[in-house]
Amino acid sequence: MPKISHKGSQMPESPIRKLVPFSEMAKKKGNHVYHLNIGQPDIKTPEVALVAIKNNHIKILEYSHSAGFESYRNKLADFYTKQQVPVNASDIIITTGGSEALLFALGSTMDVGDEIIIPEPFYANYNGFSVASGVKVVPVISTLEEGFALPPIADFEQLITSKTKAILICNPGNPTGYLYTQEEINQLAELVKKHDLFLIADEVYREFTYDGDEHFSVMNVPGLEEYAIMIDSVSKRYSMCGARIGCIVSKNKSVIATAMKFAQARLSPPTFAQIASEAALDTPQSYFDDVIVEYKGRRDTLIAELNKIEGVKVAVPKGAFYCIAKLPIDNADAFAQWMLEHFSIDGETVMVAPAAGFYSSPNVGLDEIRIAYVLKKEDLIRSVQILKEALTQYNNR
Amino acid sequence: MPKISHKGSQMPESPIRKLVPFSEMAKKKGNHVYHLNIGQPDIKTPEVALVAIKNNHIKILEYSHSAGFESYRNKLADFYTKQQVPVNASDIIITTGGSEALLFALGSTMDVGDEIIIPEPFYANYNGFSVASGVKVVPVISTLEEGFALPPIADFEQLITSKTKAILICNPGNPTGYLYTQEEINQLAELVKKHDLFLIADEVYREFTYDGDEHFSVMNVPGLEEYAIMIDSVSKRYSMCGARIGCIVSKNKSVIATAMKFAQARLSPPTFAQIASEAALDTPQSYFDDVIVEYKGRRDTLIAELNKIEGVKVAVPKGAFYCIAKLPIDNADAFAQWMLEHFSIDGETVMVAPAAGFYSSPNVGLDEIRIAYVLKKEDLIRSVQILKEALTQYNNR
Repeated sequence: MPKISHKGSQMPESPIRKLVPFSEMAKKKGNHVYHLNIGQPDIKTPEVALVAIKNNHIKILEYSHSAGFESYRNKLADFYTKQQVPVNASDIIITTGGSEALLFALGSTMDVGDEIIIPEPFYANYNGFSVASGVKVVPVISTLEEGFALPPIADFEQLITSKTKAILICNPGNPTGYLYTQEEINQLAELVKKHDLFLIADEVYREFTYDGDEHFSVMNVPGLEEYAIMIDSVSKRYSMCGARIGCIVSKNKSVIATAMKFAQARLSPPTFAQIASEAALDTPQSYFDDVIVEYKGRRDTLIAELNKIEGVKVAVPKGAFYCIAKLPIDNADAFAQWMLEHFSIDGETVMVAPAAGFYSSPNVGLDEIRIAYVLKKEDLIRSVQILKEALTQYNNR
Repeated sequence: MPKISHKGSQMPESPIRKLVPFSEMAKKKGNHVYHLNIGQPDIKTPEVALVAIKNNHIKILEYSHSAGFESYRNKLADFYTKQQVPVNASDIIITTGGSEALLFALGSTMDVGDEIIIPEPFYANYNGFSVASGVKVVPVISTLEEGFALPPIADFEQLITSKTKAILICNPGNPTGYLYTQEEINQLAELVKKHDLFLIADEVYREFTYDGDEHFSVMNVPGLEEYAIMIDSVSKRYSMCGARIGCIVSKNKSVIATAMKFAQARLSPPTFAQIASEAALDTPQSYFDDVIVEYKGRRDTLIAELNKIEGVKVAVPKGAFYCIAKLPIDNADAFAQWMLEHFSIDGETVMVAPAAGFYSSPNVGLDEIRIAYVLKKEDLIRSVQILKEALTQYNNR
């Protein structure tokens, strides 16, 4: 019998997926499960995007341009330019989600055996894309104690080898919620220029910042044009995760020309979703204002509630809609499974994402979980109550 | 400055794309260009699919299951079962186009440096996916003289090495239009079982067969369950190329479990397009009957017209909507460019795809072109008239 590939056997399972059978069991038992584990917002998609789909006049659902609709790329370039990301349509390739943008970025800049440095904890699927691309992830650790701020540049420098091709950051961060300062981005810029590396920034949460902090893009650093690659997506901005529309953006012409060859091989990004995404650019500012108020309220509620639990430590997230919490337990994986399998209050329990899967280093973050604050405030309060009681019962088993 | 990857520099450009600037120039001069170069059908998408999109009730455009809607996979399994492809929903993963299904198939079965044997000429993007996956394409030549029938099994066997992991066929074939017989599929089945290889079949044109010949799937060979992987797509079946919905199908549980890890890393296939694709399964048989009559008429017209040109040889395609034609010239690439740059009749010219790009062996097929018969009969007749006159003038320059 033929065998699957070594690469395929190395592909990591999502750190969330392995708990799914247990959440299904909990639901079968009649329990309600509060999902703090996934970044699927409950925010409504903008009307203007949904209406555009209903009003489409397509008779033949044709391939689009491999780089995406020209009209969409033009509008998107205007959108970014207004956000201090001065780019043209020719600097943008529309992709099937931020996922594909990241695959194109890795494929265009890295060969098998090359190394990419990523501050950890990081978005777990970076591991999957790296295995799929034959690239080695080299983690540089950031800590809850430092609020997941950028690790010292010296920590990066001592990891750089002749195989290092890029540094990848997520800003604001999933799973940390950390928002890099302008100074941190400038430090990274100096570092990649010094060592001839690409700086790939996953900025899919760029709109989600609180406390008046402004997101500072790698595309906004003078002199970094040839080094910076931005990954973006409509998934979170417009609560359109199912559209599967993202983009890769760079002023480096070789990068875009190379990414374009990957784009041509897969023909085109999805047409309906491009229609919705282009229309979504007309979403009124009030939509975002409301969303930010809502998330800020959720964040403040969540952090306040978590801080009431003895032994729980949490870094206040400055952006995105996740936080990492350290729990007074040994193994968050076992605890998360136990909550689904053996625990409920009045028919309700909670699903969280064990944070170990967001680290590449072994045995780090074992007592941490990631919480996505994508639920209403009252549900967050109730969830943390359940979590608190679960911790007590778990530790008194 | 950082450099793009070696892999990126090796990614092939589409054999059609490099002529695009010349077709744009021709259009700028005011010439009408008949596009015989691309497989974008002019057939209308089924009403039932378009209506489903207009009637969607989505408020939050969420991620779908990474394997695609369960309801869609169930209906699709029924659809295949009726077509003598007896599969369950759990044997199917919905992908972003046939392209992604092929990437998942390669990733799940092949490592960097592994070899895949493909009868050539073959769909040009197989080269791109192979480079992206670090896989080496080993071509086995099929010839116009033999109508592009399956090369002798001995030709395959002498190419098999310890690195060979799979054989890939396209059935019916793009760019050849050849439809493999049941006997040929059985021969391949014996071969892969003997050598422990996967047999990957791109069957995206499975409905497009003429002359009463029936398509015979690799999924329909008893005893081949662990070896066969089918790639499919809604693009051609329903003239929905822009949906970007395909699937990977296999009874081999390890293959599906591995492909699922790649699917989870990219989260989900596009939601709107899945709605359209699921609805498209209710397309009435009369739609397909009409389409087949139309394509058969186009094929017969095209072949009859081509046969009127002295020095042109063509293998009558049995399926899909392409054919390879050998022209009385040295270099089809130069000729195709010349038609766009320097030739027109009454403000009209023709764009064809030079066939060399569909071969992996160097300097093969230089005098061949691929013609897609995706235009109305009168346009095909006119196109071949233009081609005929172009050949005369080109050879008398």
